[in-house]
Parts: sequence; C-alpha cells; structure tokens
Amino acid sequence: MRILISGFGTVGQGFAEVMILRKDFFKERYGEEVTIVCAMDSSSYVSDQSGLSPNELLKRKLETGKVGTQGYQDPVKVMDSVEYDLLIEVSPTDIKTGGAGLKNIRHALESGKDVITVNKGPLALKFCELIAIARKNNCKFRFEGSVGGAMPIINLCRESLVGENIYSIRGILNGTCNFILSKMDNGQSFEQALKEAQQMGYAEADPANDIEGYDSACKVVILANSIFKRNVSFSDVSITGITSITSEAISLAASHNMVIRLIGEMSGDKLEVAPRLVPKGHPLSITGTLNAAQVVTDLAGPITISGKGAGRTETASAILSDLVSIMDDRKERGGKCQNL
Amino acid sequence: MRILISGFGTVGQGFAEVMILRKDFFKERYGEEVTIVCAMDSSSYVSDQSGLSPNELLKRKLETGKVGTQGYQDPVKVMDSVEYDLLIEVSPTDIKTGGAGLKNIRHALESGKDVITVNKGPLALKFCELIAIARKNNCKFRFEGSVGGAMPIINLCRESLVGENIYSIRGILNGTCNFILSKMDNGQSFEQALKEAQQMGYAEADPANDIEGYDSACKVVILANSIFKRNVSFSDVSITGITSITSEAISLAASHNMVIRLIGEMSGDKLEVAPRLVPKGHPLSITGTLNAAQVVTDLAGPITISGKGAGRTETASAILSDLVSIMDDRKERGGKCQNL
Repeated sequence: MRILISGFGTVGQGFAEVMILRKDFFKERYGEEVTIVCAMDSSSYVSDQSGLSPNELLKRKLETGKVGTQGYQDPVKVMDSVEYDLLIEVSPTDIKTGGAGLKNIRHALESGKDVITVNKGPLALKFCELIAIARKNNCKFRFEGSVGGAMPIINLCRESLVGENIYSIRGILNGTCNFILSKMDNGQSFEQALKEAQQMGYAEADPANDIEGYDSACKVVILANSIFKRNVSFSDVSITGITSITSEAISLAASHNMVIRLIGEMSGDKLEVAPRLVPKGHPLSITGTLNAAQVVTDLAGPITISGKGAGRTETASAILSDLVSIMDDRKERGGKCQNL
Repeated sequence: MRILISGFGTVGQGFAEVMILRKDFFKERYGEEVTIVCAMDSSSYVSDQSGLSPNELLKRKLETGKVGTQGYQDPVKVMDSVEYDLLIEVSPTDIKTGGAGLKNIRHALESGKDVITVNKGPLALKFCELIAIARKNNCKFRFEGSVGGAMPIINLCRESLVGENIYSIRGILNGTCNFILSKMDNGQSFEQALKEAQQMGYAEADPANDIEGYDSACKVVILANSIFKRNVSFSDVSITGITSITSEAISLAASHNMVIRLIGEMSGDKLEVAPRLVPKGHPLSITGTLNAAQVVTDLAGPITISGKGAGRTETASAILSDLVSIMDDRKERGGKCQNL
C-alpha cells in the first residue's frame, strides 16, 4: 500500500506519527508494509518510490517549516509523477471554494486511486460529485475524521448499525462551542468563555467558523449525504450559532435541570444547526470539548457515541480506521477494491 | 441461512418480530432468505425445514404459552433432528451452572454450527472453553447482545476501533442500578428508588442480581475475555453493589458536582464492579436505564457509547447485528465461514 499525503499540518504530522506507531500492526495484519511514497505541503514536496521515512518528514517540517525538498507549481503534476494507491488529503479546509483539497481529491479519484480525507471543504461543497467520481472509477472514498475527529460516527452507522433503519442523527459536532457552553454553565459570560477558548487554543482569533455554527453545518452536510444518501450542500443548512445565548438563558435552563447545547440535526428531511435544550444526564449533555452524536434507529433505539472532536493524534486515528477498513476490504476481495 | 432458535421468551419473541420486519432486507442484501427452521422453548418445540412463520410462532406462544407443538425430553436430540446453519440461543440466564443454554451452545458449536447468544450464564462461566470449541470447528460465535443490550460495544471495539490499542473499558452495564442511582440523585432514598424500579418492571422481586452487582460482573467477564483476550470467569471479579450507598453519599457527591454510578471496569489486569464518583457532564454520568461504556484507547483517546441496555426489540437488534456480521462474512468468503 503506497500512500501520497497532501497536507502536512497538524493532522498530516499526526498521521506520520501514527505510521511510525503502527508499523508492526500493518505487517502483522496484512503481511505488507504501508509506505509513504510522496508528501506535499502548500509549497514543497518530496517523493521516493521505495518509501519515505515518517521520522525524516517530521524532522524536516519541524526544522524548515517544509515537508519537502523541492518546490512545485502544480500539485496535479506532482501527483502524476508518483505511483501510489491511496491519497490522504489533509490540506487546510477552504469552505468557500474547496481549495487545493478539492482538486487533489478529484484528480486522485479520476486517476483510480482510493482517497481518505478529513478536509471538510470538498465534502461540504461537492460531496455527491466526488462520490460519483469514486463510483465511476471503482475507488474507495472515506472521510471518518471529517466529522467528530476521533468519534467513529460514520463507521458506527456503516458497520455496527448496518441492519438498522436510521431515522435521524443529532449531535454536538463542534468542540469549541461545547467548551464555551460548558463554561457558561459554570457562570461565565459568553465573552469570558470565548476568550478562555481562544487562550486554550480551541477557538481561532476569528472564531466565526465555530461560534456561528458554520463548522457544525459542514458536518451536518457530510452526515446527511453519507448516512442519509441525500444530495445537499452547505447552503441548504438552516444555521443558528451560539453568539446570542445569554447567561440568563443558561440560568433559566439550569433551573429546569437542562443545559443548552449547539446541536446539528439531520434526517431524511431535516438539516439544521441550532442551540437546543438538553436535559442534564442526557447523553448529549456532556461538557468540555467532546463531540457526541446520537443515532436514532428503529430497532436499537437511540445509540450515542462520543469522543474527542479534534486533536493531532485523535484525528489521525480516524484516518487510521479508514485505512484499516480499506485494506481489510482489499484483502477480502483479493486485491480488488470496491466502491463506497 | 437456516436458523434454530432455542428460548422463546422476551428476546426470542423480539427476534421473531425482527425477522418479520427485516424479511426484505436480507433478500436484498444477500439474495437469500433467512428462515427459522426450528424453535424451542423450555418444554416444547416445532420444526419445519421449509421454514416456520415467525407470525405463527408468536401467535402460538401468546395463545398457548408454548412456542412448539410437541414436547421433548432432550434438547440435543431436537437439535440433531434439524438441518440448520446457526443457533440463536436466548434461553433464560443461569449464572450458577450455565443451564440449558450452555449445553445448547456447546452442542451446536461441536456440530459445526455458528452461534449467536445473549445468554450471560454460559459466557460468564465457560467463555474460553466455548471460544476454543468454536475455533476448533471453524464456527462463528457472537454475543453482542449479552453486554449492554442494544449498545454495540463489542462490535465497536472489533470493527471501528480495530486499529487502536485498548487500555481499558469502564461502563454502566446495568440499567436497573443506573435507574436507582438516578432517582437517588433526585432525592429519593435507596429503598424508594428500588421500589419504583420494581414497580416499573426494571428490577425483579429478588433484585440481588442487579443491585449486588452480579449482572454487571457477568458483563465485565464477557468484555474482559472477548476484548482483552483474558481467561477469567465470574468468580475472578471484585464486586461491590449499590446497596450501601446512602442519600448522604449522593448529596456529598452532588455538592462536588459529581454523581455516583455503578461502574464495571476491566483491562489487562483489572476486573472490578464498584460504585464510583463521576463528574456531572462526563459521558458516564448519564441518567435512567441507559447503559454506557467508555473505551480508553491509545490514539483516539476515550470513546464512549451508550444505548438501551435491555428491552425486547433492543436486545433483538443486537442479535440482528451479529447475524448481519456473520452473513457478511460468509458472503465475502464465498460461503466459507471463518472463526472468531
């Protein structure tokens, strides 16, 4: 299994670390090595068909700020110059155009390569187009880490709950908002809580993407398209963020033994992000930066999963789970890959 | 796929209902029908190689109290008189001897049949023996519903978290205890809460199995053996129930923003059921009859899953998920089955 990584920020570096940690795992499970044959960041690349050392990639990035040894103009030309089986696309999210990630994913799928991504931009904007290209070219296209980081919501629905009819999913899909709302439960004002989130590195200097609900909306789109087989994009989501939640509203909720949480909900006909009242002790009343998603099914009832919604190793672990799933499938089908 | 059901109480009947609901699902997914060729309860059986109607089984059980039309002396002789592929063992749990369930499972595996069970007795007493028989005879042996009802904790660990190193699992594994402790959070005494649990049908007239922690301990054994590959049984678990938890202890916990929950915990070297302090807002601080389990992993961090721990359809849904998993595997391997 030969991997091309595009993007070598936090998640890309986390994945390189996971490759080091799981070297023996792949050998034992599949009797073959997983090698990185090319790594690209926004301005440089490096490739070697005999395999690059993840340690060296990490070291060079740390020391020079670049993963590669050479510059490039066109990422597509770099991709075409390498023989690889699977693209791991972890370049920065661009929710307006899809950015380089969209181009890279499209090109890899059109070239018959499997793709794993955690990049929400291409998924929220062009999900159905990308799935169609993957189908046409008989490629696998996986994106577990794009929703909820380490929380395996997509694989849970696809694997463990495969016999269920899923009515809806509602979840806490943005850890920054949940951190802010948890702090407000403890008496902080919205402004204080946001400032603390920024100091902790959970929220960015411009926090709009989180607190206005845009990030949650991207994840709603991804789940709606992948789990409910809908054909929707970002602009279809009804979005209300958390910026107008007052301390008084939090107190009033608390007096009824409730908390306020930013909930993304999707079903066959719903597509919404909005603050909701959640009873204390409910699986979606969790505090801190965790993500959680409740899947409402016909037989099993509501099943809730939670986990760390972000983080270098946590998001890389979701890529690992997609990689294992693709490699399991190749093994079972005698090397032939099957589409999504 | 020809199924023999042994046990036709709540869960057996729930499974028959699921067979009716999922008739088309199986046809579409596998191009073959799943038929029940024999159903047994404690005193009667009925068999038909061309398939029994689940509706008729349910009707007869309701009207006569018996699933079958004939009596029997020896269940093994009934099993040997039928051609079947898979045993679904859902007879009553006997935690002292394993009861009829243990004999039935052993005999089916020795005859080369796949087995799905939710019967905790055989699993808590003879797990490793049964796994060894399954391996030797190249049979699949699944038991998702034995821990946490609808909550897919075993399949989560085996499928979505397969690339993770799992350090420990701790969970709320008994919904009755969680109901009682939740009621105590709201100011009820232990006695009041237990009485209400009995009135609601959550606790039995003799509630020892739940409130002394024995039921949780069975599930700890099953998870320890199946997820951590240990070789332990019921008597190895350190068990403390909830009978000595006072309202004062609950209040003291609440004053520190904590709740008390009965937690089962297992790891490579731990095997324990005991009341624990859990911070409010933690994924294991949930209220009511839900079950929850937190899997602590090296890369993904803590992943928590929760769901209904009991119930006719909910437990049957876990059997369905095992059945789908076995049938998927048969399909992928061209009809050949692979052991656990």
